[in-house]
Amino acid sequence: MSDAGGMGRGRATAEMVAQRANVSRISVSRAFNSHTSLKPEKRALILRIAEELNYTPDRAARALVSGRSHLIGVIVPDVCSHWESQEVDALTTALQNEGFATLLFKTRTDYSMDEKLLAYMRGFNPDSVIAFVENVKPTTLAQFLDRAVPIYVHYPHPGEPEPAETGPLHDRLNVLQRPGIEQAVALLQGYGAKRIAYVSGVERSQANTAREHMLRTVMAERGLAPPTIAVGDFSYDAAYAATIDLFRVGDGADAIFAANDVGAFGVLDALRHELGLRVPEDVQVVGFDDIAQSHWKSYNLTTVKFDLEERVRALVRLILRRLKTPDAPALHETLQTRLVVRGTVG
Amino acid sequence: MSDAGGMGRGRATAEMVAQRANVSRISVSRAFNSHTSLKPEKRALILRIAEELNYTPDRAARALVSGRSHLIGVIVPDVCSHWESQEVDALTTALQNEGFATLLFKTRTDYSMDEKLLAYMRGFNPDSVIAFVENVKPTTLAQFLDRAVPIYVHYPHPGEPEPAETGPLHDRLNVLQRPGIEQAVALLQGYGAKRIAYVSGVERSQANTAREHMLRTVMAERGLAPPTIAVGDFSYDAAYAATIDLFRVGDGADAIFAANDVGAFGVLDALRHELGLRVPEDVQVVGFDDIAQSHWKSYNLTTVKFDLEERVRALVRLILRRLKTPDAPALHETLQTRLVVRGTVG
Repeated sequence: MSDAGGMGRGRATAEMVAQRANVSRISVSRAFNSHTSLKPEKRALILRIAEELNYTPDRAARALVSGRSHLIGVIVPDVCSHWESQEVDALTTALQNEGFATLLFKTRTDYSMDEKLLAYMRGFNPDSVIAFVENVKPTTLAQFLDRAVPIYVHYPHPGEPEPAETGPLHDRLNVLQRPGIEQAVALLQGYGAKRIAYVSGVERSQANTAREHMLRTVMAERGLAPPTIAVGDFSYDAAYAATIDLFRVGDGADAIFAANDVGAFGVLDALRHELGLRVPEDVQVVGFDDIAQSHWKSYNLTTVKFDLEERVRALVRLILRRLKTPDAPALHETLQTRLVVRGTVG
Repeated sequence: MSDAGGMGRGRATAEMVAQRANVSRISVSRAFNSHTSLKPEKRALILRIAEELNYTPDRAARALVSGRSHLIGVIVPDVCSHWESQEVDALTTALQNEGFATLLFKTRTDYSMDEKLLAYMRGFNPDSVIAFVENVKPTTLAQFLDRAVPIYVHYPHPGEPEPAETGPLHDRLNVLQRPGIEQAVALLQGYGAKRIAYVSGVERSQANTAREHMLRTVMAERGLAPPTIAVGDFSYDAAYAATIDLFRVGDGADAIFAANDVGAFGVLDALRHELGLRVPEDVQVVGFDDIAQSHWKSYNLTTVKFDLEERVRALVRLILRRLKTPDAPALHETLQTRLVVRGTVG
């Protein structure tokens, strides 16, 4: 952060420096970027006058010269989602330590990004963009980014076609859901569960479809009948309603796997407060994410952990590596998941 | 957003346009800013060539000319706080609709911002900054902002000295806590509460101290003994521990007012799951904020609502008004609070 400016007393503009040094405005910008060519004596003059006038260039000026904005775009459908807010928080801290700032872009409520939104994002010239395939496809995003190579968070799942390496360049954070989901199903089985329901997330979310595929695969491998699907949307309210329908209209279940922790909270509250069932005695419940709320005593949720710190570290590593080697082939990081056992299975 | 760029196919640089038009790089920038002077025929030529080359300027280039970055800085201690994540989410949507993007700045864990962080923030040249006095004082922030007039969220409270209007210019969002707190105390009294405890937030947070002062004032006015203070920090875990201490070490209470909703959840879980007390039969509980989780069935919290939509509308209004009239005297907006009655009082 040594280049972030003086101690705030600098009120001089680049124009004032340029005038005093009798050089162009662009020369002043160049003088502050060591990667650009400028006669040494000219640079020395400009820097000396800048110091006299207490001028420090701002990022907009340096961005023009260096091509770097120091802005990292994060495309999110919903910052209030507990998972996303925890990720944005940790990511902002980590990026700040590296001299970057987090720029938030919200998708439309259906999770998509239209051309207007993409053009808008491009206007800020982010150094990197973290995206999900359900929000915007790499081919679409590539048309809107001049130089940033996007990072896609990806959940590989069985039966998925191999990703085409011929498409536009993008880096990837692969989240392996299998270990945690397998551990969850094994534990449920160990405690006697036979009929497992899945309370889903938003249908078009890749996290949701990949999770359902993996659960289906693991259950089949372990000799269980396919899960009953109760349609949710990652929210507490939808999971709450889906659980009531599952027991009042459908055939119930002796275990419920929710697509995320917040959904699992809705499942738990519906079972206990609306249906009068005990957890884990009557119905067992497993979530996914391990957000901070999962240890709260009203929930005390057994859940598949996807480690936030590891995830943020991997994302920052991908960003820094790519900025260092803009032309490197696609970079991949892989993260594991694991089961955290608390009180809702047993 | 009509100025945000073309449909993403523009790969030409400003330099290419400048070269083809035989003008300077700065003239190209100026051509795209209708507020700057440029000979009409020169502007027309540049815009025609830009269109031929499919060039659109990015914000860094325009920021140099217009002095606007279209970035709104938001200083937050913790994006994971439910209240803050919900505010950042709503604010990002609202700002995006106005052509601005939200830039997050995290304070240090003690809620403060040091000079390094402030210089860093300044480097991004935000058009406006939303701040809290416990994070950074207006006089300090003014030294680090070249042109942005910050907005301070303020909780006026009884006995507070009048704000000095002679300090650096800043706009203000005043949150009147009295109505909601008065309604809460009246309801608790109506249901027979006599010994009310306050589970506090972070000590140096102005929201916390103003809330405690107001509670103390309202209780005195209504003939109640001063509240017992149980020290929390706005988190679930601290409120949980403080509640256990209050009953196991201290003298207990027949009603608890928590500094925020998340703290109230910790209070509720400690009362029910650790102390074996019933809510509201044995102890009544009130929170503050009315975050989305407050209606969850495990909590179903009676709380003082501070309307998020109204708050975000007021913040956006302050930003736009200030950008329109940079030299206007300090602008103030005032927001009310009110009690939302659910199941934890009665």
